[in-house]
Amino acid sequence: MIIVMNKDAQHNEIENVLMLIQKLGLEFSILKNENNTVILTQPSYDINSELFKSLPKVEYVVTLNEDYKLVYKNINNLETKIKVGDVVIGGNELTMIAGPCSIESKDQLFRIALHLKNSGVKIIRAGAFKFRTSPYSFQGLGYKGLELLKELKEETGLMVISEILDHHDLPEFEKVVDILQIGARNMHNINLLKAVGESSKPVLLKRSYSATLKEFLFSAEYILMGGNKNVILCERGIRTFSDYTRNTLDISIVPAIKQRSHLPVIVDPSHATGKRDLIIPVSLAAIAAGADGLMIEVHHTPELAYSDSEQAIRLEQFDDLINRAKKVAEAVGRKL
Amino acid sequence: MIIVMNKDAQHNEIENVLMLIQKLGLEFSILKNENNTVILTQPSYDINSELFKSLPKVEYVVTLNEDYKLVYKNINNLETKIKVGDVVIGGNELTMIAGPCSIESKDQLFRIALHLKNSGVKIIRAGAFKFRTSPYSFQGLGYKGLELLKELKEETGLMVISEILDHHDLPEFEKVVDILQIGARNMHNINLLKAVGESSKPVLLKRSYSATLKEFLFSAEYILMGGNKNVILCERGIRTFSDYTRNTLDISIVPAIKQRSHLPVIVDPSHATGKRDLIIPVSLAAIAAGADGLMIEVHHTPELAYSDSEQAIRLEQFDDLINRAKKVAEAVGRKL
Amino acid sequence: MIIVMNKDAQHNEIENVLMLIQKLGLEFSILKNENNTVILTQPSYDINSELFKSLPKVEYVVTLNEDYKLVYKNINNLETKIKVGDVVIGGNELTMIAGPCSIESKDQLFRIALHLKNSGVKIIRAGAFKFRTSPYSFQGLGYKGLELLKELKEETGLMVISEILDHHDLPEFEKVVDILQIGARNMHNINLLKAVGESSKPVLLKRSYSATLKEFLFSAEYILMGGNKNVILCERGIRTFSDYTRNTLDISIVPAIKQRSHLPVIVDPSHATGKRDLIIPVSLAAIAAGADGLMIEVHHTPELAYSDSEQAIRLEQFDDLINRAKKVAEAVGRKL
Amino acid sequence: MIIVMNKDAQHNEIENVLMLIQKLGLEFSILKNENNTVILTQPSYDINSELFKSLPKVEYVVTLNEDYKLVYKNINNLETKIKVGDVVIGGNELTMIAGPCSIESKDQLFRIALHLKNSGVKIIRAGAFKFRTSPYSFQGLGYKGLELLKELKEETGLMVISEILDHHDLPEFEKVVDILQIGARNMHNINLLKAVGESSKPVLLKRSYSATLKEFLFSAEYILMGGNKNVILCERGIRTFSDYTRNTLDISIVPAIKQRSHLPVIVDPSHATGKRDLIIPVSLAAIAAGADGLMIEVHHTPELAYSDSEQAIRLEQFDDLINRAKKVAEAVGRKL
Repeated sequence: MIIVMNKDAQHNEIENVLMLIQKLGLEFSILKNENNTVILTQPSYDINSELFKSLPKVEYVVTLNEDYKLVYKNINNLETKIKVGDVVIGGNELTMIAGPCSIESKDQLFRIALHLKNSGVKIIRAGAFKFRTSPYSFQGLGYKGLELLKELKEETGLMVISEILDHHDLPEFEKVVDILQIGARNMHNINLLKAVGESSKPVLLKRSYSATLKEFLFSAEYILMGGNKNVILCERGIRTFSDYTRNTLDISIVPAIKQRSHLPVIVDPSHATGKRDLIIPVSLAAIAAGADGLMIEVHHTPELAYSDSEQAIRLEQFDDLINRAKKVAEAVGRKL
Repeated sequence: MIIVMNKDAQHNEIENVLMLIQKLGLEFSILKNENNTVILTQPSYDINSELFKSLPKVEYVVTLNEDYKLVYKNINNLETKIKVGDVVIGGNELTMIAGPCSIESKDQLFRIALHLKNSGVKIIRAGAFKFRTSPYSFQGLGYKGLELLKELKEETGLMVISEILDHHDLPEFEKVVDILQIGARNMHNINLLKAVGESSKPVLLKRSYSATLKEFLFSAEYILMGGNKNVILCERGIRTFSDYTRNTLDISIVPAIKQRSHLPVIVDPSHATGKRDLIIPVSLAAIAAGADGLMIEVHHTPELAYSDSEQAIRLEQFDDLINRAKKVAEAVGRKL
Repeated sequence: MIIVMNKDAQHNEIENVLMLIQKLGLEFSILKNENNTVILTQPSYDINSELFKSLPKVEYVVTLNEDYKLVYKNINNLETKIKVGDVVIGGNELTMIAGPCSIESKDQLFRIALHLKNSGVKIIRAGAFKFRTSPYSFQGLGYKGLELLKELKEETGLMVISEILDHHDLPEFEKVVDILQIGARNMHNINLLKAVGESSKPVLLKRSYSATLKEFLFSAEYILMGGNKNVILCERGIRTFSDYTRNTLDISIVPAIKQRSHLPVIVDPSHATGKRDLIIPVSLAAIAAGADGLMIEVHHTPELAYSDSEQAIRLEQFDDLINRAKKVAEAVGRKL
Repeated sequence: MIIVMNKDAQHNEIENVLMLIQKLGLEFSILKNENNTVILTQPSYDINSELFKSLPKVEYVVTLNEDYKLVYKNINNLETKIKVGDVVIGGNELTMIAGPCSIESKDQLFRIALHLKNSGVKIIRAGAFKFRTSPYSFQGLGYKGLELLKELKEETGLMVISEILDHHDLPEFEKVVDILQIGARNMHNINLLKAVGESSKPVLLKRSYSATLKEFLFSAEYILMGGNKNVILCERGIRTFSDYTRNTLDISIVPAIKQRSHLPVIVDPSHATGKRDLIIPVSLAAIAAGADGLMIEVHHTPELAYSDSEQAIRLEQFDDLINRAKKVAEAVGRKL
């Protein structure tokens, strides 16, 4: 804090301030000249600056927080690279994660996954436990879905990422998935964040559609505090007044995170736009902005998908995306 | 759904549509004249209207959902009245819930609660488990806090409401609290919603600061589906671009909910505004708009509060609020 | 500004900062102790603090702006009362402004206005020049509408307020209207603000649906700078993600403005909600929150109105509103 | 409109609906079977569907608007290409518009413009009349600024774009500028839109930071209706809760406009982000998403700029941007 005393502040009024500082256990330093007095204290997290504002003859109180510690770029500016099998997330090569929104059946899962494998995808996304706004919507296959993911891995060698909704499911997830996904609506679920923070599996953390950049990084901090250093941040659109897309992709957050944090950032254009026809241009934009990868919803017959059918792209659109994304990746000095 | 066929639609194109309808198991009805054909189907929750839009010669598809069933006002228009001890929430008399944001110590809790009891409050709010954006902020006393609430009840006869963050804590909460509180960040925590839906305790459900009215009612529907009919809805402000308050109180939602649902609605002006000096006028506005009660953060020395100190009102401000609220309540035909 | 130098700052680095301050013509004051140096400068409007941030060994730069001068409450805390005929806006008595959205015909205008006169309304709102999003919508009667307003005044003794869209129409408006209305979409139209700032007519300034509180007060400042002290601020809802109302009424701004400014504040629940059935409860809330008046759209057959038909209340609803508003006004120590 | 009658509707209730349709002068068509009646009417712009909803036994009324006519892609899918001197906006080659936010002096304007000319820029942006939120901020050089632009053109052969705030300044602007700029705060200034709609100069229309896609296209429609076909749309960020950037760039609007309209779209990353360090990655993203060009604020000493100094990039940053943008343009099949 910087506490600026009024010019008319008397000795006892300055003393008042110093007594409160001492009561709160803070170190401080006083600066004076013939007219003014300013008191600097050490940075402090939970001190309420209003406490000081209400003391007599205190003119301004300015708080200077250094909020997150582990998420921030460290001094030697190293970026975190996350190894998942033979894939490195956060390095020069971009990571493409793709697959259906929900696992609907073995047939559907394998059909989509095998096509994607053929197109070069190594990590399949597929939801077993689904968050749905309406209790009357399809809620996912649950543990049955996890089993299908396990079969997929064994039969194809693909890796998988799937969303965990409850920290009590963690042991079951850890047996199957290669990356744990925390969904946007759970970005603030602290018990879940703490639980995956103690897991040995990498975590993909989606930004809540109403989270500020700071809140997003704080949620990552909760995970890192548990010892899990392998966190991938994922932008998936924010809620705004704009109504022609499902959400509004906040593209600037990609370079903004890169400036602040050592963690890799990927973009999910499917949830950001909610519109199949916008996925490709927005994906290219994400790569150009510096994203370390993409997460895309793909379905062989989107119109029949059990969930998010308006935003899943078709298999052949995915191949088109890959071809175009390679060129943009190269244009910004990356590989895909 | 209403499916309007193009004027040029041929017999086989209409057949196509009907086959898909039958495949999906929907009842339907055809309307025709010399120029046009329109097909009406029964209402259906999870059918994807895009499926039909892509068929040849389909001009428009209009979906008519009736989304929530249990939350909606029933035919005889009865409003839900929730009995908690000798308090009725949702009746003619307004309910005043007040207390500190966090339980900090026995002394703090009792001091505030006893003052409020004296002022006529019968239900004390006080957080034991706290959601905090930063992992470095005070996270609440946890189970120790629940114990203090139990002591408070035993020694004073007051009732208590406290926020539950994890459904695995439910048995412990049920031993102590009179109302379970679901916080704004957990409005989408389906496991938690389902768990409290099976509890015998009333539930106060806070609107997420980024939830639409429809999403808010859907979350309540999750609880009602479990059999728990005693849900109190709580508006606490939404996140907007406006920056002079912590959130923006969406005052219109009070009458808008009343028009749609039988559930009682209360307002939390503390989180909505985040500013002590705005609490009283906004509280009066909530009552005038038809709220069934208020939930207010109160502290004997807000500047020293461990959390939310800028929005807690002082004990004497609370008494002032009560006096003024009584008059406004009377002006709109209610009692406090 | 407060400029805090790094502990390692050398004499010449401090000199650098002082030279820039002097170049910019600012007075300053230096505070020092054995470890730190802090430089305070006089408040300054257009100085770019980044200029200082980029100098070597400057640790923090804090700007302390006092932005608006004329809009702010003056030292003796007097509130502005605006006389319009025998009405005083901003005093103890609330002001009710009502009328149709658009003037459609003499018959329509007189029919509504005479009913409202009978119900005690003294100031009629009615649009002659209409802003419409679509160029294909009804754009108002224009000058013909102003003539009808003039006839209305002459025949009934009522006063009128109407929106001006272009500063070149000011002379024609000044001949007719008692209050000039600046619409939400013109809150940033500086030429218009400057023009009405030189008028002798009071001005009702609507908040843009995307304006912060600060921007709203700055627009009022533009008017006051021209010499026109009679500005009425009008909250009419902001644009948010919430979708069950046309806009979201920001009710807290009523007391927030009262805390900062001496100008009267009224609320327009018609545009804020866009829903006929929400007007009455929201109007009562506005009064309870401390508004100095209301501006309400009324129509004898809203379904046939040329514009804003979903938000106009019926004549009999208006009378119901008046009766209920009187009671709430009294409950908060005001009169209607 | 599609009007669906209730199953119990009697002959006279259907007649009621038809009479109203006829009164409104609409063509219609009736569809019936043994159970239901549906009435289809011709599309209609200003008919109030509520009018029908309130009639007895009307179950649903669905409106199907085709809102804008001139802005929409025409049947043969041609895109508008706008010729400004030897530059074509909207073709395969991207257009780079750059320059200072405000004209501060001849020296400043020429220094920046000559550097940019050297870097291949052909159209210079520079504000003579500035919109400023605070009346105490620098408001631009006004007509003196226009004169400097004229000198710049004569001495360098560069073309210029500058913002017009008031339609009465149009003759003076037409003497100087090659493209008229309508700023975000004037997107709803209908008199200004109509005036430039009758000009022979191309118009760059910025999206208001609170405009939906539909409102943005409607404002362009106002211009096209006047006969001016040469409209360039410019996305420059929308106002959201997100607070680490000045606005939130709505990147998806680029392909979304391309799907709907034949008009070229450019992106202004300077206002969208408000942060110098985000300009380059966001510019590359805009090109990858399909933008037809960029408009960038550049200054030789941004820290000393009179306005928008935090978002202007340095001259050498601009050259870096050009080099990188060329590669991304090529990757998406365009040229720069």
